[in-house]
Amino acid sequence: MTEPLPPGSTIGILGGGQLGRMLAVAAGRLGLRVHIFEPSETPPAAEVACHHTAAAFTDEAALISFAQGVDVVTYEFENIPTAALDILEAHRPIRPNREALRVSQDRLTEKTWLSELGLAVAPFADIADAAALGDALDRIGTPAILKTRRFGYDGKGQARIADATAAEQALASLEGAPAILEGFVPFTKEISVIGARGLDGRVACFDPGENVHEDGILRRTTVPAGVSHALATDAVLIASRILTALDYVGVLGVELFVTDGGLIVNEIAPRVHNSGHWTQNGCVIDQFEQHVRAVAGWPLGDGKRHSDTQMENLIGDDVDRIPQIGAEPGAALHLYGKAETRPGRKMGHVNRLR
Amino acid sequence: MTEPLPPGSTIGILGGGQLGRMLAVAAGRLGLRVHIFEPSETPPAAEVACHHTAAAFTDEAALISFAQGVDVVTYEFENIPTAALDILEAHRPIRPNREALRVSQDRLTEKTWLSELGLAVAPFADIADAAALGDALDRIGTPAILKTRRFGYDGKGQARIADATAAEQALASLEGAPAILEGFVPFTKEISVIGARGLDGRVACFDPGENVHEDGILRRTTVPAGVSHALATDAVLIASRILTALDYVGVLGVELFVTDGGLIVNEIAPRVHNSGHWTQNGCVIDQFEQHVRAVAGWPLGDGKRHSDTQMENLIGDDVDRIPQIGAEPGAALHLYGKAETRPGRKMGHVNRLR
Repeated sequence: MTEPLPPGSTIGILGGGQLGRMLAVAAGRLGLRVHIFEPSETPPAAEVACHHTAAAFTDEAALISFAQGVDVVTYEFENIPTAALDILEAHRPIRPNREALRVSQDRLTEKTWLSELGLAVAPFADIADAAALGDALDRIGTPAILKTRRFGYDGKGQARIADATAAEQALASLEGAPAILEGFVPFTKEISVIGARGLDGRVACFDPGENVHEDGILRRTTVPAGVSHALATDAVLIASRILTALDYVGVLGVELFVTDGGLIVNEIAPRVHNSGHWTQNGCVIDQFEQHVRAVAGWPLGDGKRHSDTQMENLIGDDVDRIPQIGAEPGAALHLYGKAETRPGRKMGHVNRLR
Repeated sequence: MTEPLPPGSTIGILGGGQLGRMLAVAAGRLGLRVHIFEPSETPPAAEVACHHTAAAFTDEAALISFAQGVDVVTYEFENIPTAALDILEAHRPIRPNREALRVSQDRLTEKTWLSELGLAVAPFADIADAAALGDALDRIGTPAILKTRRFGYDGKGQARIADATAAEQALASLEGAPAILEGFVPFTKEISVIGARGLDGRVACFDPGENVHEDGILRRTTVPAGVSHALATDAVLIASRILTALDYVGVLGVELFVTDGGLIVNEIAPRVHNSGHWTQNGCVIDQFEQHVRAVAGWPLGDGKRHSDTQMENLIGDDVDRIPQIGAEPGAALHLYGKAETRPGRKMGHVNRLR
């Protein structure tokens, strides 16, 4: 299928969290239907979607029925079981493609792939056991970060190694999961670029945003980022290169460290990204619509920013401030419909025009 | 109930067309659920809503069950049967209130009410029969427009009377429906104001837009309107006065004629309005979110415009231009998910930033 999907077509989305919810809202704006595949019974995305299949990613019959009921399959998270993807791909195109998932599902594969593309990444090493960790620490030095190769998010599955004496405990904390050691990058700021690539190969990137994390979770993204024009251009070029090398279709998030020696790629996410939420109120076409356009084979929007914007995540008890934020001039609230507030849980975000 | 509805509450919407759809999308952004009440099986709004009751407005059991499942009732069209409203109101608050519906459901009641509020309207007369029409034409003169008192939209239920000889045929065309004769207003342009009033009585209006109609259907709205600052302020004051006089909660559209003698109120609509669609891309908080905020008892947004915008309706075969419009820089497409294209049918709209 290379023709644009006509209005009334159905986008299948794997995963029903807030990213799926905002993708569904964007698809709804374009007259497209959404079918959510998500094991839990009442996921946030199902409230604004046309259909919801509540089944496990191991349920072959449910996966086939889902695939046959949609026109294209996309996803809001990267850790989808390979067997599920095999089943789905036999029936409908998956966008972004399998290669993007293969590369980004595993930190070691991702870092290796990025290096081979000629992009700068932090020093890294495959950690199979304690001996490998010792060798890697000798080579990379401390401080360093030990991470599980897969399934990490929001700082989970990571252990900081301040000096060699902390190595044993760090390794034990990962409970035998395959791991990677990453050297510490002395960065001055972290920025990210949200890029999109259409079925026709055209690329459109949003302006880089400057990110601040707290406790391993994104707290704020500010756009424009406080970097030189040259550096912002470099960031966009790096994102474009990754998109093209992956023959990617959809939106991709690229996190970058700004160092005295230039930009270092931290990680990529083959999906809409928290640091791109600002586009909902700073641009005519936001990252969610851009992703929907791409996977539906529509032309991309131009990604132009009409307003300077700051995004703040509302995490856990931050929801107590909703009444005040709702009354702030120039502030747009986005809430995810999650019933239960938990510490560290992303409940919503606010975009403030500046 | 005067407390704001907490996130996770359910807004009940009567009607499932494009206005209900865009209200549902806005509610979804705020973490609110939507339940659509609409007789047809697959209305546009149901595709993006949490629940849909497909039942007639005469189905008492369905109305009661619907009301009991929602926290507040609102609507996307004004011609809701009174008996249905009586049933719903026994269970849940209806916002905007019954008075707003009573006034705006009937052109004669509306014109009388506006006059008594001290606002300028076109000369008008109640037309019970041919004799009354003759007398009215003597007084008001020609050209004039004969309209059904109820159920008119997009130029339907109207007959233009160029001179007295056309009176008989015009009356016959309304097939005995109660009618009103309205005198012709020599206007230079038509503008409209989208106003909102919160549960706390605060009013927020969007900037007036300038409307162009074709064949009785809105074609384009351009913001800012090409009128003086003083006139724009007058328009906003008129909308505020109507909102407050009705003790209104929600969004209201006010259509105004610009004449050499000042502004004349054409009609009011107790709901989100086609001429306010530009706010989706011109403002941080659009008319749909503003309405949801109001009926949910939340603080209103400030209605500030960040970008000059032109809205163009996509009517009937205009959908053939979707591929071109989708590729235009600075253009945001909004499609309604209607399966069938018919001449004169509103299929979507495009907002262009200028």
